[in-house]
Amino acid sequence: MIILHNESFINRDEAKTDIEDRGYTFGDGVYEVVRVYNGEIFMLEEHLDRLQYSLGEIAIDYNVAEKKLGDLLSQLILKNDVVDGAIYLQITRAVSPRKHHYPENSVPQLYAYPLDLSTPEKEQKEGIQVTLREDLRWHRCDIKSLNLLYNIMVKQYAHQNGFYEALLYRNEEHVTEGSSSNFFGVKEGRVITHPANNYILNGITRIAVQRFCEELNIPFEEKVLSLKDLNTLDEAFITSTSAEVIPVVKIDEQEINGGQVGSVTKQLLEAFKNKVS
Amino acid sequence: MIILHNESFINRDEAKTDIEDRGYTFGDGVYEVVRVYNGEIFMLEEHLDRLQYSLGEIAIDYNVAEKKLGDLLSQLILKNDVVDGAIYLQITRAVSPRKHHYPENSVPQLYAYPLDLSTPEKEQKEGIQVTLREDLRWHRCDIKSLNLLYNIMVKQYAHQNGFYEALLYRNEEHVTEGSSSNFFGVKEGRVITHPANNYILNGITRIAVQRFCEELNIPFEEKVLSLKDLNTLDEAFITSTSAEVIPVVKIDEQEINGGQVGSVTKQLLEAFKNKVS
Repeated sequence: MIILHNESFINRDEAKTDIEDRGYTFGDGVYEVVRVYNGEIFMLEEHLDRLQYSLGEIAIDYNVAEKKLGDLLSQLILKNDVVDGAIYLQITRAVSPRKHHYPENSVPQLYAYPLDLSTPEKEQKEGIQVTLREDLRWHRCDIKSLNLLYNIMVKQYAHQNGFYEALLYRNEEHVTEGSSSNFFGVKEGRVITHPANNYILNGITRIAVQRFCEELNIPFEEKVLSLKDLNTLDEAFITSTSAEVIPVVKIDEQEINGGQVGSVTKQLLEAFKNKVS
Repeated sequence: MIILHNESFINRDEAKTDIEDRGYTFGDGVYEVVRVYNGEIFMLEEHLDRLQYSLGEIAIDYNVAEKKLGDLLSQLILKNDVVDGAIYLQITRAVSPRKHHYPENSVPQLYAYPLDLSTPEKEQKEGIQVTLREDLRWHRCDIKSLNLLYNIMVKQYAHQNGFYEALLYRNEEHVTEGSSSNFFGVKEGRVITHPANNYILNGITRIAVQRFCEELNIPFEEKVLSLKDLNTLDEAFITSTSAEVIPVVKIDEQEINGGQVGSVTKQLLEAFKNKVS
């Protein structure tokens, strides 16, 4: 495997970072996972825009356009013969002796490499069961940062207990998103999801779904769902770069749509598949 | 400089970790900073207890006692001739391909090394100014994890604006702690600080101060201070492993005790200095 480090390509066994990389000591960095279909990155521009936003919010001085990051990723895909897969990339602030405040003259560290990824076709067809967990994350979930400890803790809980995903809620009431996905409800033909504010990450597949809704004349509403609202949904689904669109047919013990995949969800998954095939 | 990696000592230039160390991709790890006085670690047992607690809360399978971590740290101190300084140590879950849930058969990665640290004597003598910032961190601040992005963001804000520390408050009201310190108020001779629950890190120096209060017959109260309470304090101070005890004489534009270091704070700083001299 070939790894992109800053603007150089290196072999996998050389891909190590210093122990004082601030990504390692503070989680001081941001990341993206981009999906590759037929050798091309899906919605690259949106990923790079979000990456630039995350970098800006934590004041990492890295100009995505100036560095021609899209070109570098295309080269990385070619060098690794990625046809159907994903690329992970992260940018940390600097390698610098451990002090909380930011070092001057930081040199950001970028690493990008292919991820092992397969489309969850069974889950897309049959739907999944999710479990509700309290959302104890920080209040800047709009930044796609490397501070993912709570996300992995609840994902592990879900995994250990036979669920595909953990669905999070704040303040004993408000449903936000999954540990690594956005969540959508469908009610009376309308698609409802959490507003893209500081409590969720505005997923690229979430943006894609919003566009499909427009094209298909499905009303798309940004609204906070409560735990009580979950019981009244006609359908539910999650989205993410790796999940694409996966129907949710059960939330803990509560079946959605009698445990069957709903028609609006099917329509959106089909729109997605058409887009990327 | 000699670095402790797991149970081996390596040279500084060999101290690199793999890009798929989960500490690097998820902040999936915990840490401690221990203070060395006269070549000995101060309150080692309390640090190791807290480390074991943090490891347990995120289910990293590393037994501090079995690994004889205290002995390894003593050797590290000798090898680096640390007399008056500090040791940083972190333990991450594993090096493993990036997936949210925990890998099976994880091999935790420990790195420990001396930190460049000097006692903030001027600040201890004259006091410092802090700035109030909203506490947007996750709700498990009792875990000393590597997810420190919000801590460094507010520390940077303080640093850029001429403050020594950022003092955090939640829900527009409740004062929690500093970005890398615990906060204490003094009112009518009583020392007041936030309860050691999930909203703060129970600092080792906080524990020391609690003990000094007992020895000196100073009432010690665990209570949440509100923003309004701050205006009524007779004295205030922060504590941390590197700060020891530092008087706070101004919170944004509001002077505490007319901008002078108070007598209870002086007493506690003196008790601390006596303990470690």
